[in-house]
Amino acid sequence: MSVLVAISGRDCSKIMTALEAKLPDVKISQWPHCDNLNDIEFVLAWLAPEDMWVQLPNLKAVSSFGAGIDSIDLNVLPKNVVVTRIVDENLAHDMAEYVLAHILAHKLRLKEYILKQQDNQWCPKRSYRDKHVVILGFGELGQACATRLLINNFSVSAFSQSAKSMADVNCIHQQAALPNLLNKADYLVCLLPLTPQTKGIIDRNLLAHLPPHAVLINVSRGQHVVEKDLLHALDQQQLRAATLDVFTQEPLGDEHPFWQHPKITLTPHCAALSDLDSVTTQIAQNVERLKLGLDLNHQVDRTKGY
Amino acid sequence: MSVLVAISGRDCSKIMTALEAKLPDVKISQWPHCDNLNDIEFVLAWLAPEDMWVQLPNLKAVSSFGAGIDSIDLNVLPKNVVVTRIVDENLAHDMAEYVLAHILAHKLRLKEYILKQQDNQWCPKRSYRDKHVVILGFGELGQACATRLLINNFSVSAFSQSAKSMADVNCIHQQAALPNLLNKADYLVCLLPLTPQTKGIIDRNLLAHLPPHAVLINVSRGQHVVEKDLLHALDQQQLRAATLDVFTQEPLGDEHPFWQHPKITLTPHCAALSDLDSVTTQIAQNVERLKLGLDLNHQVDRTKGY
Repeated sequence: MSVLVAISGRDCSKIMTALEAKLPDVKISQWPHCDNLNDIEFVLAWLAPEDMWVQLPNLKAVSSFGAGIDSIDLNVLPKNVVVTRIVDENLAHDMAEYVLAHILAHKLRLKEYILKQQDNQWCPKRSYRDKHVVILGFGELGQACATRLLINNFSVSAFSQSAKSMADVNCIHQQAALPNLLNKADYLVCLLPLTPQTKGIIDRNLLAHLPPHAVLINVSRGQHVVEKDLLHALDQQQLRAATLDVFTQEPLGDEHPFWQHPKITLTPHCAALSDLDSVTTQIAQNVERLKLGLDLNHQVDRTKGY
Repeated sequence: MSVLVAISGRDCSKIMTALEAKLPDVKISQWPHCDNLNDIEFVLAWLAPEDMWVQLPNLKAVSSFGAGIDSIDLNVLPKNVVVTRIVDENLAHDMAEYVLAHILAHKLRLKEYILKQQDNQWCPKRSYRDKHVVILGFGELGQACATRLLINNFSVSAFSQSAKSMADVNCIHQQAALPNLLNKADYLVCLLPLTPQTKGIIDRNLLAHLPPHAVLINVSRGQHVVEKDLLHALDQQQLRAATLDVFTQEPLGDEHPFWQHPKITLTPHCAALSDLDSVTTQIAQNVERLKLGLDLNHQVDRTKGY
């Protein structure tokens, strides 16, 4: 058995070195430089080329290179292939810290003061008092954010596909109850998995339920947001501001209206960067488990898509 | 007995209305519009004119209009005059939130990304991992900051004039131990009272003990910092950045080099704004206590100056 690394759009040399050190007895290739495709049983993938998969007749397992598996088209994979993802405590910590930092930045008007400083303007204002955060998506990352927000005196509600619960969090999972929750949101944080059901969920219809002082924080995937609907809501004062870490196209195109929009704070998909050591340790463990015939860690439910 | 409000540089109409509502049986005047200075026993003061004090022969108590009493010159007050200050839980909460928000902003490079956004630059970088915060001054505000930082995974040390202790905080009060602590600071937060001993404490000598990646947050008084020494340290890469909420002269003069300094984030003395209702309730209580001959709340030790 051997391992194939098929990650598009980034230099994989450090990943290769780390995996080789952790799996000294396993042959590891990097797509498309692979002598024997028949031998590949495990693939580490991120936006791998679609036509690659049919060339791997003995594929048994695919691991996403991140917490989400939306970079892998499940439809083209044989049903017996196990799909896994990265579950990284550091990712959850960093995500929670990013969400808290950006909510506090809005609450305390940090960007407003930075822009006033550029104009030598002394203009003290009170912070906002709003503190109800609604989190869409309540997996590891959503729960880590909720915990962090609660200890910092925010109140938290969460919406998820399946029923969840956490002390002091108002959890709902019925779509019909969502508008009523959005009505009372001061901050809306998107941490949903990207699935056909959640693609474009933050559209004109959803945004219309938010009060005009609400702030959107999207840290999941750009495809959750219908970009023109967000711009419309911001321009029509239906929404106070948005902080976006993810975009339909990344890097964001130079002509994109988000760059210079006064109500948008954008960061370059840096809210939670995978830690190389943590990722490669998890991959190596799953490769060893596959060799031993054990169940793999962090398997994805292919019917749910996350 | 009657009360005099002597607050310079702000519109006092709301304060007067609130005090009159809370003290319906007490005559309240606003300097310099006062018929009978002999009748004044209680003054609410902020930067009151120096020559006012000798005109109040029956003065018994002075309350500062803030947590600090540095706006009152203790030397001109007769020894028997009691000095009090405002102790406001909201102030401590807001101060802790400000310190946390600005430390997280530096850790997560928020301003760096805002400036990159202005130039359409996509440039992801890891957050800083630093997390040791040294707090100078460990009264109510310093302790509230420490509590908030600890629950957010920072490690905290504190330096104060007198011995203090708090669980999980490394407390020191000997001046000789300070350089060794500064050596290990990632963030230095100034929350000292302003006294002759602490004026100009953040000078070239103190700054030289900080590591070059350290960040200064001053939320106490502008006079704690020797401004030219701070500029020198920033320009010589002895310090990564500074967030300043307070200045020697406020509002900051239009020509001041802090405005456009790339390593300085400045806010217009808004970290913790007194809540009018809380302040006037405390004043009213002390006026009532004075009438009844009771000890006043939140008295200042005039020999220590805070």
